[in-house]
Amino acid sequence: MTRVDGRKFDELRKVTITRNYLKHPQGSVLIEMGDTKVICTAMVEDRVPPFLKGTGTGWVTAEYSMLPGSTENRKIRAAAKGRIDGRSQEIQRLIGRSLRSVVNLEDLGERTIWVDCDVIQADGGTRTAAITGGFVALVDALYKLYSEGEIDYMPVKSFLSAISVGVVDENRLLDLCYAEDSKAKVDMNVIMTDKEEFVELQGTGEEAPFSREDLVELIRLAEKGNRELTKTQRDVLGEIADLVGMEKPNKEEPDKGEEENEE
Amino acid sequence: MTRVDGRKFDELRKVTITRNYLKHPQGSVLIEMGDTKVICTAMVEDRVPPFLKGTGTGWVTAEYSMLPGSTENRKIRAAAKGRIDGRSQEIQRLIGRSLRSVVNLEDLGERTIWVDCDVIQADGGTRTAAITGGFVALVDALYKLYSEGEIDYMPVKSFLSAISVGVVDENRLLDLCYAEDSKAKVDMNVIMTDKEEFVELQGTGEEAPFSREDLVELIRLAEKGNRELTKTQRDVLGEIADLVGMEKPNKEEPDKGEEENEE
Amino acid sequence: MTRVDGRKFDELRKVTITRNYLKHPQGSVLIEMGDTKVICTAMVEDRVPPFLKGTGTGWVTAEYSMLPGSTENRKIRAAAKGRIDGRSQEIQRLIGRSLRSVVNLEDLGERTIWVDCDVIQADGGTRTAAITGGFVALVDALYKLYSEGEIDYMPVKSFLSAISVGVVDENRLLDLCYAEDSKAKVDMNVIMTDKEEFVELQGTGEEAPFSREDLVELIRLAEKGNRELTKTQRDVLGEIADLVGMEKPNKEEPDKGEEENEE
Amino acid sequence: MTRVDGRKFDELRKVTITRNYLKHPQGSVLIEMGDTKVICTAMVEDRVPPFLKGTGTGWVTAEYSMLPGSTENRKIRAAAKGRIDGRSQEIQRLIGRSLRSVVNLEDLGERTIWVDCDVIQADGGTRTAAITGGFVALVDALYKLYSEGEIDYMPVKSFLSAISVGVVDENRLLDLCYAEDSKAKVDMNVIMTDKEEFVELQGTGEEAPFSREDLVELIRLAEKGNRELTKTQRDVLGEIADLVGMEKPNKEEPDKGEEENEE
Amino acid sequence: MTRVDGRKFDELRKVTITRNYLKHPQGSVLIEMGDTKVICTAMVEDRVPPFLKGTGTGWVTAEYSMLPGSTENRKIRAAAKGRIDGRSQEIQRLIGRSLRSVVNLEDLGERTIWVDCDVIQADGGTRTAAITGGFVALVDALYKLYSEGEIDYMPVKSFLSAISVGVVDENRLLDLCYAEDSKAKVDMNVIMTDKEEFVELQGTGEEAPFSREDLVELIRLAEKGNRELTKTQRDVLGEIADLVGMEKPNKEEPDKGEEENEE
Amino acid sequence: MTRVDGRKFDELRKVTITRNYLKHPQGSVLIEMGDTKVICTAMVEDRVPPFLKGTGTGWVTAEYSMLPGSTENRKIRAAAKGRIDGRSQEIQRLIGRSLRSVVNLEDLGERTIWVDCDVIQADGGTRTAAITGGFVALVDALYKLYSEGEIDYMPVKSFLSAISVGVVDENRLLDLCYAEDSKAKVDMNVIMTDKEEFVELQGTGEEAPFSREDLVELIRLAEKGNRELTKTQRDVLGEIADLVGMEKPNKEEPDKGEEENEE
Repeated sequence: MTRVDGRKFDELRKVTITRNYLKHPQGSVLIEMGDTKVICTAMVEDRVPPFLKGTGTGWVTAEYSMLPGSTENRKIRAAAKGRIDGRSQEIQRLIGRSLRSVVNLEDLGERTIWVDCDVIQADGGTRTAAITGGFVALVDALYKLYSEGEIDYMPVKSFLSAISVGVVDENRLLDLCYAEDSKAKVDMNVIMTDKEEFVELQGTGEEAPFSREDLVELIRLAEKGNRELTKTQRDVLGEIADLVGMEKPNKEEPDKGEEENEE
Repeated sequence: MTRVDGRKFDELRKVTITRNYLKHPQGSVLIEMGDTKVICTAMVEDRVPPFLKGTGTGWVTAEYSMLPGSTENRKIRAAAKGRIDGRSQEIQRLIGRSLRSVVNLEDLGERTIWVDCDVIQADGGTRTAAITGGFVALVDALYKLYSEGEIDYMPVKSFLSAISVGVVDENRLLDLCYAEDSKAKVDMNVIMTDKEEFVELQGTGEEAPFSREDLVELIRLAEKGNRELTKTQRDVLGEIADLVGMEKPNKEEPDKGEEENEE
Repeated sequence: MTRVDGRKFDELRKVTITRNYLKHPQGSVLIEMGDTKVICTAMVEDRVPPFLKGTGTGWVTAEYSMLPGSTENRKIRAAAKGRIDGRSQEIQRLIGRSLRSVVNLEDLGERTIWVDCDVIQADGGTRTAAITGGFVALVDALYKLYSEGEIDYMPVKSFLSAISVGVVDENRLLDLCYAEDSKAKVDMNVIMTDKEEFVELQGTGEEAPFSREDLVELIRLAEKGNRELTKTQRDVLGEIADLVGMEKPNKEEPDKGEEENEE
Repeated sequence: MTRVDGRKFDELRKVTITRNYLKHPQGSVLIEMGDTKVICTAMVEDRVPPFLKGTGTGWVTAEYSMLPGSTENRKIRAAAKGRIDGRSQEIQRLIGRSLRSVVNLEDLGERTIWVDCDVIQADGGTRTAAITGGFVALVDALYKLYSEGEIDYMPVKSFLSAISVGVVDENRLLDLCYAEDSKAKVDMNVIMTDKEEFVELQGTGEEAPFSREDLVELIRLAEKGNRELTKTQRDVLGEIADLVGMEKPNKEEPDKGEEENEE
Repeated sequence: MTRVDGRKFDELRKVTITRNYLKHPQGSVLIEMGDTKVICTAMVEDRVPPFLKGTGTGWVTAEYSMLPGSTENRKIRAAAKGRIDGRSQEIQRLIGRSLRSVVNLEDLGERTIWVDCDVIQADGGTRTAAITGGFVALVDALYKLYSEGEIDYMPVKSFLSAISVGVVDENRLLDLCYAEDSKAKVDMNVIMTDKEEFVELQGTGEEAPFSREDLVELIRLAEKGNRELTKTQRDVLGEIADLVGMEKPNKEEPDKGEEENEE
Repeated sequence: MTRVDGRKFDELRKVTITRNYLKHPQGSVLIEMGDTKVICTAMVEDRVPPFLKGTGTGWVTAEYSMLPGSTENRKIRAAAKGRIDGRSQEIQRLIGRSLRSVVNLEDLGERTIWVDCDVIQADGGTRTAAITGGFVALVDALYKLYSEGEIDYMPVKSFLSAISVGVVDENRLLDLCYAEDSKAKVDMNVIMTDKEEFVELQGTGEEAPFSREDLVELIRLAEKGNRELTKTQRDVLGEIADLVGMEKPNKEEPDKGEEENEE
């Protein structure tokens, strides 16, 4: 048995990440995973939310939205309804939380990086694409600050990517497209670093509960997918990729001994 | 090393479920897990959301809120802000989705069961307490319909309970209280049936990503916790507990042949 | 003729006030008047609304809400509608105004006391119960400030309680339950101090206008009810009750002469 | 001692009611009480709120608002804030409730009369002026229906007027202007019929509670004021005034017997 | 062929501008153009929007609203809908932008002039009446500041008025009333100074596009109308009219040389 | 003197219109005018707004929004503010009104065409680009209906395009980019058909009023720009372009004579 689009069970869709997609934001990316297309931008604002004022610590936050024309049935705008729907809120909280987990916020200065993920075409896996693409846009924005001397190192601890896995017709599949997602019994989003560690794991038995065996196997699939996504991220980032995981420079070290003597 | 309240690592807090807590709702429960106290009510409304109209299928939905006085710093009301905050939306979507997963909605008739979970005192684990308590209130409301002949069997597939687990100071703990939760590196909510299957699993590396080993061990703890919670639910439900998992009666079968003859 | 629940025309329902009902708020009370149950909490915040900033004066404000499960037909949450309904606004303005009338705000320091009244079960008279119970929670919160030396005396001028009276089937009744309230021709809420004075009086001829004679008799009933409620408040407050009506200490007077000598 | 504008304690301000003030509404009035000016319109809509659909009964509802330029400090529009403030809601609920109390809604047919009260200049007593003027606009709108044969009698039970009274500097005053109102210790709004009966009574001890003696005296003043307002209403309504209190025609009675014979 | 109200094609309706219509605002006007009646008030607030803070520059802004009773079918309040409708927003943006174009904001000091335009009766052309009347109210408010020495000259560059023109039944008409406006094929609002210059021009082919010839002829009509409106404004403003277009006094010049010597 | 990007005064920026840009909508276009990029989609919904129900007439409506990353300073989402800002409302009303003016709505059937214009990169002239691109998306969507036999002819009366013109540094310019727009004294948007007629004309003297001479010259420029835009639209639409302006088929004609005879 094969999948709806001919892929193997453990095969990702074609992934393309186009950097510098727009001219205004410090980082901007168009990520395409099959027919799913998301514009991810990262913009720097020189202030932080109230709870961080005066702490010297920065913030990373995300917003997620779907264009009305991104789905088969026109998606009504949040603005027209006067509120962001629960699903979008949940997704943008997830994106922001995940991105923050790989950034040393305390070394960012009192800045907010806004990561906006706007789905222009949806075919399943938009939230995981947003995380994978949003990470690249975020790295670009941070690199801009770093190359301009605004921050003294790249405060990114590790790579971050995300993929969906699920059980469809008794088969465990990697990277569900919409046709698969809509009939999945189990659906799981797995967000990982390049060190094979989990940042977030959300599994839902949409129609039926799932066993421990399902869980173990799905995670194995997700690990494979995230390894491949990290590789794509590395490739498109080129030399900047090597700055991910950079050590924080210890400014005082060179003359520490002397300073201690002097005191 | 012991926990902040003297419990063992794999020990639940004291759980009390008081049924028939309020006089108006068809089902109402006060669930206490240590100092966490949630009022869960289940009320039947004789209509369904627009997308179910005319299908004969019912619906279960949940709302979650915290009283202003439930937390140490007064919790501002959603109504005063004019919108439900993202966290509450996420939680009430989780509660509703979980409860629906164990109900045969197509046998409910065109009815909505509203499960309201109002936290009157918060000390960690309010969402999992809401699910565990909400399930009991839901069963009571369905039993009311069943005993009045409104539905011809109890359309509840299995028990449902939820518990949090997490990693605090390198220790893996069951049922985190607020003092533990606020310094947990990893935090996971696990929602299960009484058949040792997972309905939903949400794990977050709050400060650091977690390993596959952490994941496996935390799930083991959660399984233990949920087993105990199911037992408490059975105990308080008494005879009604036996109706959970009831087979749908096959009305026509016994006399099907005869009926056909008669016609 | 007797009343629906067997009470005499001028008889209150059973009143129970449970102090320290919740652990987080400085003052918290469960007040029960028959089947009407309201959680009243009083929480201190160290800032005041904009119009009082820099004045040294404090503020007391109230919020009122009904749990969805408190009424026979599920009460839709204000948050779900995106706004507080007119009735609730009217009630919370009334509660706040009444409580402020017995507090010396100018001796409170720049603090706000938030009094939250959440009805968990409604059977008529929820607003008056909220005032009677809210007063006790407020006194507890102020006593907390006083006993910790944050304020130098108890700035409460007098006791405050409230009761409803009305005309049902030509009879003038004290403390209407819901069954009575819903068919009352005249409905009046009377808020009084322990000095037999009126703080607020709101009478409505729901179906028919009322005469001056009705007015005089209803007020007499309300006076009786409030006298009894004040007694209950005194009893539950114990020794703290004696601090209500306390004189503001004149700090400088006793040793003013000496101090001047010493300087 | 005299009042700020030279009036006697029990003297109303100059009252002018201009009928047919606007061309579109069925009833429209400009009421002036001293410098307080309110435009009151009554418009007929051929449908009722959902809870009355199919009952044959009509509805009267009111909305109240102040123009930004009506007060000394510009009044921010409700629309700019996105919600109607608590005070306005309270007032418009009061106006609607009072007007409904003198109309036989069940003889109105399934119609809603919208009474809009827009304060163009405020100098105290705007809500009572709105009721007194709104009543006249309502009568005009009902007369329009009656004269066009839409309803078969004037379903208005009695006249309705309202006035404020209060205690200022130990003096009990009728019809407070803003300068008086802002320093009143006690403030009371009294809404009455022309039969010396009370429709609504709202008294507030703004700064100090008030005694039973105050209450009795203030009500006596209010009765005097309302008597005079009713007279003004009668005068401006001319012949239509006589239709207030009209008996519902008993159509069938006179010829009932004959009709039965004929059939 | 004549117009619905007997006017010639290039004839304005009767225009009346009543100054000092209300007592609280610094400037207030009732403008009547035929049956269209708008209350325009101008109120001074001693602060500016955030983007002007610290710049020394002032601001002029406008709000526009229609009373519920101003139209044949009751106009639902913006507050009841929770938002200002698109048409009203568009109009109030237009009014504000136009008024700002004739004021030297940088000489106003850090003040906001709020111009509120409330339509009490609508018969077409309410937005243009609001601009013509709002200008007079604005001049009155500025004159108040000037005569009190708050500003040292009248910072009004020129007169400002507005009129509608349109094509109805192949005829080009000046100052459309509602009956004409509702069947106009082309509708244009033209806002001009007294120097025959255009401040804003908005033409819409409601049902059919229009030719360049239409455009030229309609503008000619609008010029005639605005000339007449400016004349009316001059007449009602009396002596103050001469202060419009006043030169900014050059404070330093006369004694600049001497001051430099002295230093 | 040359323009900021080297263009001649009467020269458009490079225009690219990419059809079928997204897979879900019936019509979808990416329009680029220099650095301004707008995604325009047209989606068909099988129902109409309430005021058209039962009339057999269709509707065309538009929504306009800017992505947060489209501008130099991040654009706050309408959803985050809870309301659509005045500028966006004005623009989307303009787009909808213009598109409707060239469609025979009465021949559309009871359908709504939603035209969504989402700016992904802004460099001036976004609203005019949205109209020019939105028209092409609309034609594609209508062609889809036509080719599927849902409508029996293309109900598009003429081509529609829009361009901005303005006065910058005393020069009259065609198609302003953002750098020009932000310092323009006069700014005008001109929406035309391919028959050299005006659909809408909006001119604003941003800083100074403008003369009739300016007006005439700016319109001449706009006519040139719109001629060129129409040509581009024709080119990208290919054969479909010839269906614009198609006559409504007269179904009965062939046998009309006979039918009349028969009657």
